[in-house]
Amino acid sequence: MRVGILAATAMLAACASAGAPEAGAQAQVRSLGEILEQSPASDWRTVDPENTVYMDLPAGRVIIELSATFTPEHTRNIRELVRAGWFNSANIVRSQENYVVQWGRDENDPGPMGAATATLTPEFSRPRRGLDVTRLRDPDSYAREVGFADGFPMASDGREAWMAHCPGMVGAGRGDTAESGSGAELYVVIGHAPRHLDRNIATIGRVVQGMELLSVMPRGTGALGFYETPQERTAIPRVRMASDVPANERVNLEALRTDSATFRDVIESRRFRRESWFLEPVGRINLCNVPLPVRVRP
Amino acid sequence: MRVGILAATAMLAACASAGAPEAGAQAQVRSLGEILEQSPASDWRTVDPENTVYMDLPAGRVIIELSATFTPEHTRNIRELVRAGWFNSANIVRSQENYVVQWGRDENDPGPMGAATATLTPEFSRPRRGLDVTRLRDPDSYAREVGFADGFPMASDGREAWMAHCPGMVGAGRGDTAESGSGAELYVVIGHAPRHLDRNIATIGRVVQGMELLSVMPRGTGALGFYETPQERTAIPRVRMASDVPANERVNLEALRTDSATFRDVIESRRFRRESWFLEPVGRINLCNVPLPVRVRP
Repeated sequence: MRVGILAATAMLAACASAGAPEAGAQAQVRSLGEILEQSPASDWRTVDPENTVYMDLPAGRVIIELSATFTPEHTRNIRELVRAGWFNSANIVRSQENYVVQWGRDENDPGPMGAATATLTPEFSRPRRGLDVTRLRDPDSYAREVGFADGFPMASDGREAWMAHCPGMVGAGRGDTAESGSGAELYVVIGHAPRHLDRNIATIGRVVQGMELLSVMPRGTGALGFYETPQERTAIPRVRMASDVPANERVNLEALRTDSATFRDVIESRRFRRESWFLEPVGRINLCNVPLPVRVRP
Repeated sequence: MRVGILAATAMLAACASAGAPEAGAQAQVRSLGEILEQSPASDWRTVDPENTVYMDLPAGRVIIELSATFTPEHTRNIRELVRAGWFNSANIVRSQENYVVQWGRDENDPGPMGAATATLTPEFSRPRRGLDVTRLRDPDSYAREVGFADGFPMASDGREAWMAHCPGMVGAGRGDTAESGSGAELYVVIGHAPRHLDRNIATIGRVVQGMELLSVMPRGTGALGFYETPQERTAIPRVRMASDVPANERVNLEALRTDSATFRDVIESRRFRRESWFLEPVGRINLCNVPLPVRVRP
């Protein structure tokens, strides 16, 4: 018995046929896969190697895109930390169910920081002004406005804007003070979006490849999901900026532009579910349920 | 360096002190742990062994509570399937990133069904009338009303009500027709709530213990996260109703009543984050971010 439930991803095979005849001019319904296949090349952008981190785990490569738009100082600092070798021989130190996986270095093994600083001016939000936002029209539990800007999910109170804690988003751990985060310890969201962290900590980017390697880390049994013994940790052998990797060894990723017509079609195809499996088309969507398509450059 | 971010769970140690003096009568702020510790016994209910499934995996026990309130026919059918041995030697067949983990039997190894039926009248929703709902006041992306009834997260359009697809919720897989689900193949939500499944499929209960065993299943590389080879699957040696297990071998679980004053305090303690780590107290919450506390009977 292979009864399934449909997926939220780009792998959907099913696609409903055209709309009801009485709708007259209604366009044919396209699947998500078809929408992406038919997109013009100009609706995609190169994921900038200078903002891209390759984190090699024993099981494979995790690729993180940093946001120079929302967190320029963290992006700069993380770039410095990576280049100094800070994350080489760092460890996955925490895996908390339905929350976050976190990595960093031991207190007693601080590692090289190069030109990076140990504290940073907080970048929990930035001015809303100046952002080109593709807005979502459905209500959000946490913010007056939600949408996408420069490739990332964002929320706003009208004055300030911030990247939202959706699954796959990466943040910079901090201590009790706002300035105590630097990017030297990072976490990724692995469960239902903990949006109460928005504006309390800096999200600095997102995992664009390899989430399935991070999300299955055995949960830690200590408080907050920290591992209780060094043996439970996963060592991170090597972390590099993509721009420091020879061009012929890079993964040339492209991300769908979130200000493109194709992305607006993606949103609508997920808001209204026309696949034959769906008996109720929904007609609404939450910020963190919108896919952010990434592909290897064709 | 051990910079953390605070947790959404009951393990929080931190607790802010009393409110601003100018608030006058404002009560002292209690941590989630303190709220639970100080709760009266009458605010807890026994998780009914007749609605409780023990699913033993190689790594440990998963415990699922079925909802007789929302899905009485599925609850009855799953009980029959479990008693007939249907799930003994079933397998985890699917693990899709940020979506679901699913288990069932092979098409060519159907197994005993006892008095269970292979199809069921759909239970995608039930009348809102008759439910004792603890409402959430914050907006929801998918439904007019959200809250909790009889221990489960729910949503409603005012007329019908249904259990919402939050992480940890268990549903009954189905084929293309509404009647094709029976509880013979089950899935659990492991990622950001796929609320577009609400009203399209029957959620039948939730995992009350052992989510950390299911959510780390290696992701399948086939379409929709299905495993491509039998070797990738995890065998499920044994599944029983708790009521069929000798009383002295049971895990005697209690769940916080969702119609209790303590639960309303839990919601408010998560809506307004008073722990010292939080610089911005939020003041809002999403349905799926509200914890549903469960404990072993003291």
